[in-house]
Amino acid sequence: MSLIVQKYGGTSVGSIDRIMNVADRVIATRKEGHDIVVVVSAMSGETDRLLDLAKEISDRPSGRELDVLLSTGEQVTIALLSMALEKKGFSALSYTGAQVYIRTDSVYNKARIIDIDGARVNKALHEGKIVVVAGFQGSDEHGNITTLGRGGSDTTAVAMAAALKADECQIYTDVDGVYTADPRIVPEARLLTRMTFEEMLELASLGSKVLQIRSVEFARKYNVKLRVLSAFTNNPGTLITAEDEENMEQALISGVTYNRNEAKLTIVGVPDKPGIAFKILGPIADANIEVDMIVQNVGEDNTTDLTFTVNRNDFENALDILKNTAVEMDARDVKGDKRIVKISVVGVGMRSHAGIASEMFKALADEGINIQMISTSEIKISVVVDEKYLELGVRTLHSAFGLENNTSPGGE
Amino acid sequence: MSLIVQKYGGTSVGSIDRIMNVADRVIATRKEGHDIVVVVSAMSGETDRLLDLAKEISDRPSGRELDVLLSTGEQVTIALLSMALEKKGFSALSYTGAQVYIRTDSVYNKARIIDIDGARVNKALHEGKIVVVAGFQGSDEHGNITTLGRGGSDTTAVAMAAALKADECQIYTDVDGVYTADPRIVPEARLLTRMTFEEMLELASLGSKVLQIRSVEFARKYNVKLRVLSAFTNNPGTLITAEDEENMEQALISGVTYNRNEAKLTIVGVPDKPGIAFKILGPIADANIEVDMIVQNVGEDNTTDLTFTVNRNDFENALDILKNTAVEMDARDVKGDKRIVKISVVGVGMRSHAGIASEMFKALADEGINIQMISTSEIKISVVVDEKYLELGVRTLHSAFGLENNTSPGGE
Repeated sequence: MSLIVQKYGGTSVGSIDRIMNVADRVIATRKEGHDIVVVVSAMSGETDRLLDLAKEISDRPSGRELDVLLSTGEQVTIALLSMALEKKGFSALSYTGAQVYIRTDSVYNKARIIDIDGARVNKALHEGKIVVVAGFQGSDEHGNITTLGRGGSDTTAVAMAAALKADECQIYTDVDGVYTADPRIVPEARLLTRMTFEEMLELASLGSKVLQIRSVEFARKYNVKLRVLSAFTNNPGTLITAEDEENMEQALISGVTYNRNEAKLTIVGVPDKPGIAFKILGPIADANIEVDMIVQNVGEDNTTDLTFTVNRNDFENALDILKNTAVEMDARDVKGDKRIVKISVVGVGMRSHAGIASEMFKALADEGINIQMISTSEIKISVVVDEKYLELGVRTLHSAFGLENNTSPGGE
Repeated sequence: MSLIVQKYGGTSVGSIDRIMNVADRVIATRKEGHDIVVVVSAMSGETDRLLDLAKEISDRPSGRELDVLLSTGEQVTIALLSMALEKKGFSALSYTGAQVYIRTDSVYNKARIIDIDGARVNKALHEGKIVVVAGFQGSDEHGNITTLGRGGSDTTAVAMAAALKADECQIYTDVDGVYTADPRIVPEARLLTRMTFEEMLELASLGSKVLQIRSVEFARKYNVKLRVLSAFTNNPGTLITAEDEENMEQALISGVTYNRNEAKLTIVGVPDKPGIAFKILGPIADANIEVDMIVQNVGEDNTTDLTFTVNRNDFENALDILKNTAVEMDARDVKGDKRIVKISVVGVGMRSHAGIASEMFKALADEGINIQMISTSEIKISVVVDEKYLELGVRTLHSAFGLENNTSPGGE
């Protein structure tokens, strides 16, 4: 008998019917002889409903009170799911984050989990109960209610699995798992049966919404086996674990991904002096605008060009700031382009295989796709291209690296 | 500076607009220089919405999980009211029942408060905060969430006032206070400015919905000054306190009330033996039917008649049971009548004034109203009459005891 932590998101518990379905899934696992802790989100729409109430009162409601308000969403779900399990003849106990001592810091709305005291949950499991825990929430050392921010239920599940030394943490979602590419763009995209934490982290940071990045970091830190699978089918999903030399030796890349939510800005002809990157990007950061890729070229006339990308929503704001900076720094020009897309290939195999980057660039060049920016990490290469090349670029790379075959790290 | 506990019910916090109005009322009291603890109910309709969700899952949901579910209702209100107070420039802190250690027994859905640790609230008051507490809820010694049952927010407010030794506990509602009679029936009915706990208890037990009976018992036990007043006007309402000889010396009766939700059953010609009341009423109690008035007459032929009243909803059920009992006990007949009303006069003055009962009976007789049953307590006389006499009976008594004048215990 092993211990499984299962997490169901808002869509999976979005109605009473769906909650009954989740109960059936939990019971099926139970009948296989496992102990189970279920972590649930608020029913879909509920968090927005509560936020709307708060916004009727104030544009900037108190963070503390917002957490008191929002945490009721998951509390409703744990009660309903426990009732559903009991209705179906299984003994269940629900707990809020505070009740099972999910201790967080005091940063309201985006608190971080510091510790979980698993004693209460272990006791209930010992008594044969199915334990249902509210995701997304905890309490600080003074007993104030806190929330972990959107998507925090994934983190709750992983942290709970770590605290209880669970055998597996299953994240149920509305997709079948992680694919080699977006199946809407690449019909041949294949479901990965396995991947590493590092790969998943890169995918999450590239904008994949399958898992919240903090939950993956947590899983890696505590070596919690993580499985992403669908709450609506019976596929085994994608298992995410630490690197396993034996299995992953021949790995090249595990997938191709893209992000179309970025925009590009360039400041041209800046007199080249130490500290210019800070002078340019400092005011951007001060405006709470996150910068993703940064590329700097030094020209021949002792001036430099600096290009960076931001979220498209921040584009106009960033452009205004950059124009001011350009005047102050005596730069020649400022340019901006929203019609771009970032395409990335990710894979732990890159570490030991040379030539991935050049293979990538060649494949794109063969299709006439011009590369505007390049950024690399140990297991990822990203390029920025004109957004009209999104589908062509993704399909080209998916095919170039043979991802439709079984040569990926998670090869079936 | 004194400490005031204010309680606002579901109607008073039924929308964001109304919550803003409640914030204004709280702030007005604050500006008078008082410390304030506010106890709130769930927004009107919210508890029913949550109950409906539970009933979609199960006809008999687990009591524990029902409390986890329902307690979210007040939690939403405390957060929103605190936001409203902060929006208006006043510093506020919200607390759930568990957070301020409202310890209850473990009888889910109708738990009783055992203790309140006021330390946390006192600390917040000391820091100049307005404290907002969720009514209707607490937690048991194991940290399980409990609720006090419908209307329990009144009890929370009074218990909080007792624990904090507050100077006054103000229960805001949608009526102006307690009247000498229902103003819809007696246009001359007068608002009582003062009354005793005992009188309020009798009124509550007679079906008045102004205050929950347990909260009045609590207030009497801990001698908490209780004030009932409207959340929608600026009237001072009715102050309910322990008996005060000086003020109440000349008191006769404080009000006339009625209950039209009862029905009458009679078992006729029961052979008179010891224990017949138990034999007749035992099966009624076993069916969880509450009996209110009971009258037994011994006839001349060594048989007895027993008449009692039950809630109208239980009438058919009680009649069936009584018919079975009649067969077993060899009784002559069983009769039932739903078309009755109970009219009562209440007043601590009765204790020291003889002749109230006969005055009451004479007034009714003068109007040709036939009395079917009589029941008395130390400070109350109730009669059952045909329901067609409801308005006439109430008006007759209101006038007979001069309640439209200022001779009542609470005389202005």
